[in-house]
Amino acid sequence: MAIEEGFGPQLDFLLQAPLDRSRGAEPLQRQLARRLREAVLDGRLPSGCRLPGSRTLAAALGISRNSVTAVYDLLGAEGYIEPSRQGTRVAELTRAPRHPQPNEQRKVPELARRSARIPQNHYRAESSYALKPGVPALTRFPHAAWRRCVERAHREADTGTLGYGPPRGEPALRTAILRHLALARGVRCTRDQVVITEGAQDALMLCVRLLTDPGDTAWVEDPGYRGVQTALASGDLDAVPMDVDGAGLRVPDAAWRTRTPRLIYTTPSHQYPTGAILTAGRRLELIEKAREHGTWIIEDDYDSEFRHSGAPIGAMQSLAPDAPVLYVGSFSKTLFPALRMGFLVLPESLVEPVKPLLDQILRGGHRHEQLALADFVESGQFGRHLGRMRRLYRTRRDALTAALAAHLTVPHSITGSESGMHLVLHLPPTHPDHLIAAAARERRMAPMALSLCSLRPAPEVNGLVLGYGNTPESRYASLCRELDELIKSSARGGR
Amino acid sequence: MAIEEGFGPQLDFLLQAPLDRSRGAEPLQRQLARRLREAVLDGRLPSGCRLPGSRTLAAALGISRNSVTAVYDLLGAEGYIEPSRQGTRVAELTRAPRHPQPNEQRKVPELARRSARIPQNHYRAESSYALKPGVPALTRFPHAAWRRCVERAHREADTGTLGYGPPRGEPALRTAILRHLALARGVRCTRDQVVITEGAQDALMLCVRLLTDPGDTAWVEDPGYRGVQTALASGDLDAVPMDVDGAGLRVPDAAWRTRTPRLIYTTPSHQYPTGAILTAGRRLELIEKAREHGTWIIEDDYDSEFRHSGAPIGAMQSLAPDAPVLYVGSFSKTLFPALRMGFLVLPESLVEPVKPLLDQILRGGHRHEQLALADFVESGQFGRHLGRMRRLYRTRRDALTAALAAHLTVPHSITGSESGMHLVLHLPPTHPDHLIAAAARERRMAPMALSLCSLRPAPEVNGLVLGYGNTPESRYASLCRELDELIKSSARGGR
Repeated sequence: MAIEEGFGPQLDFLLQAPLDRSRGAEPLQRQLARRLREAVLDGRLPSGCRLPGSRTLAAALGISRNSVTAVYDLLGAEGYIEPSRQGTRVAELTRAPRHPQPNEQRKVPELARRSARIPQNHYRAESSYALKPGVPALTRFPHAAWRRCVERAHREADTGTLGYGPPRGEPALRTAILRHLALARGVRCTRDQVVITEGAQDALMLCVRLLTDPGDTAWVEDPGYRGVQTALASGDLDAVPMDVDGAGLRVPDAAWRTRTPRLIYTTPSHQYPTGAILTAGRRLELIEKAREHGTWIIEDDYDSEFRHSGAPIGAMQSLAPDAPVLYVGSFSKTLFPALRMGFLVLPESLVEPVKPLLDQILRGGHRHEQLALADFVESGQFGRHLGRMRRLYRTRRDALTAALAAHLTVPHSITGSESGMHLVLHLPPTHPDHLIAAAARERRMAPMALSLCSLRPAPEVNGLVLGYGNTPESRYASLCRELDELIKSSARGGR
Repeated sequence: MAIEEGFGPQLDFLLQAPLDRSRGAEPLQRQLARRLREAVLDGRLPSGCRLPGSRTLAAALGISRNSVTAVYDLLGAEGYIEPSRQGTRVAELTRAPRHPQPNEQRKVPELARRSARIPQNHYRAESSYALKPGVPALTRFPHAAWRRCVERAHREADTGTLGYGPPRGEPALRTAILRHLALARGVRCTRDQVVITEGAQDALMLCVRLLTDPGDTAWVEDPGYRGVQTALASGDLDAVPMDVDGAGLRVPDAAWRTRTPRLIYTTPSHQYPTGAILTAGRRLELIEKAREHGTWIIEDDYDSEFRHSGAPIGAMQSLAPDAPVLYVGSFSKTLFPALRMGFLVLPESLVEPVKPLLDQILRGGHRHEQLALADFVESGQFGRHLGRMRRLYRTRRDALTAALAAHLTVPHSITGSESGMHLVLHLPPTHPDHLIAAAARERRMAPMALSLCSLRPAPEVNGLVLGYGNTPESRYASLCRELDELIKSSARGGR
């Protein structure tokens, strides 16, 4: 391979390792461009160095002149090389980044302070582990029927459905949710109030973005749902823990003056995790005071579809006309978590003000899945599935409380078993719950330590949150015996 | 129907409108509970009012005593009624919310200040309108093949896939993206660096949440992509507009000292909307200075898969080892917008620090869709579709530039046609672009006014962003003639 005039030793690297010709003309150009770029960046081709003419280089490499011209054009557009009176030259690149030396301490930029406030000891475990809270009965989900709805949506929706959708979600799904909520939860709203979100967590973030400013105060339940802290920290809110008792969130009157909240987060129908029901009196007072102080209330109604004794507790959202309540719901518990679909019901008075903002923030999407879900709801399959799951969870709740009564030999009490898919086993502080939870994890059990839900040190908040949604009742006796053992060894100082 | 002792006139409302018995026992309980709640809330049943015994009420209503007991239990749990020595009484509910009077000005709490900073004059139009930028060729998407991938994912994934997934996304998809990026964009990374997001907008928000604090400075291109302002406003960042010229983002040296950024947002391979390519020299300088100042660079590589002349421009992410660059990509343009799937490639040094945060912020989900996409990529269907679309968009680009040259009679210039699915038609300030865009909308054309991308008043930023992705070339001649007419009438002061 002859080296013609003007082709200096700097380009030897191109000749020494031949180009891979097995993949056609375009990959050849890419390879050449990449090698030339690298040589410019690492200094093998220094600034001002002249490159051979395209004909010369093409001949030397045995590729077409057009390919070389295309690569020169590209590197010219990218600013690596530039034309000059003496032909093409390597451009002046000031301060090319050096490869860092092994012993050189590189300055890694810091993460945001708001990130540092996100709690990092969150509960996380395999969905398949026994007694994991928050997981519905996955094996009982009518997956084949769901698949048919998804297939139908893909088959029947027009091509336009591949494009961006309405920011607040598919109208058909919002209508379906509206009807379901009216029937099951006593929520009264119009379709304009319903916004489809990526699950409940996304709905919380949306509330934070729309309604709060950095440094604003937000009240949260303590013990409470940790996920809300992640949303509040991301919005730079000041989270103030509020006590919870047997009647739910308990707000001292003075707090309205001393720590006036912009936002209150509450789980009124089945307090997470204790299961307390926020009484009507407290609900009404909360709404009235919130109106007075310009406060927004987020009602997270995460599992109220499954009430085991008597009729369902009504939602707070409809307790008073145009209450300043944002109702948050999710299909993660009623259908399946991977669906990632939830919704927000806005107060009527917010619909118009936030519309232009939602048009910016939300993109619409997952349109076929939304249409499939609308179909699943409207065809009655959702209602039938809910009914079946309500019966199943009631059976499992009964079986678990019976098994605990039969097999636990340590003093304990149980709360929160009236609805949902979990209950709370309260234990004396002599049996530290984090030790029990850690030991349980090694036996493929995933109860959550109750103390994880505590924002302030509180020795009496000690126990286990036991999920019975996805664990069959046949296993409860042996699981409870195992738990009893683990609880007892935790008192001896752990394993 | 006999009224027994203790059953006062307050309960007449229950007897006057009979319960609807057509739907079984549970709906009966719900109806009774709802009516009693309403009567308590609106004062028909005042505080302290005694309720009849369950036997008496059951007999009067002709329902089972168990039903009444269940409803009393429920309302007791909810705090509407309470036991007393004289039987069940209505609870003391302080300050029940009044129905607002029609002439009463209700205090509507204000929206957040951060919301007020979200730009509200965003471009929005039907996907089906001609020349709309940002919409890929929807009719050419191989929907049937995609559907088969979705169906297979639903059929083959195990039941556990219905549960929560890995926060950063399905490993199979992250591996597929990794391979695609290495080949198509020269991005070098490991699977740990790849995070699946809800499209590019969600990736931007994630960067803001992880890396910035309120009040931090962020540099954005001007003219530039408006969506980034929404993300920055939500994070309370101070967006500083930076000029763009023919070589991309132009940063005056002094700005590094006077307006030191925490974040820089840039579209280096095809500046949005002008189409300028950020030169290698500027890229290297940006990286070097960013390192020096602890700044993060977001590289939004929104449509670089479609380069019409020569090989693709390489990504900035791999220009220097462990550059402080977060690479953002999306499948909205390469597949379809409603898929809502995008990704973020973290710098290596960020992977470990942000892992615990991502575990909190991200929930995993859309797992079947992610597995379907991994399948679509790995089976080569994605690559073939990209190839077809590259050829199609090149043809359309050529046809549109030819039609503009043939039919536009007003002075103009064109930039940004080297890649992607849109080009910019620059017009003299005598023809205000917002008038043209508004008039075009009435003829079902959706060019975007270039001035919408401008952050600061700039009369020379005037023109139309024309998308050719989803508009067939057979229409270009007549569309360009129509546009010419509209442009000319805009100069006469609009319609």
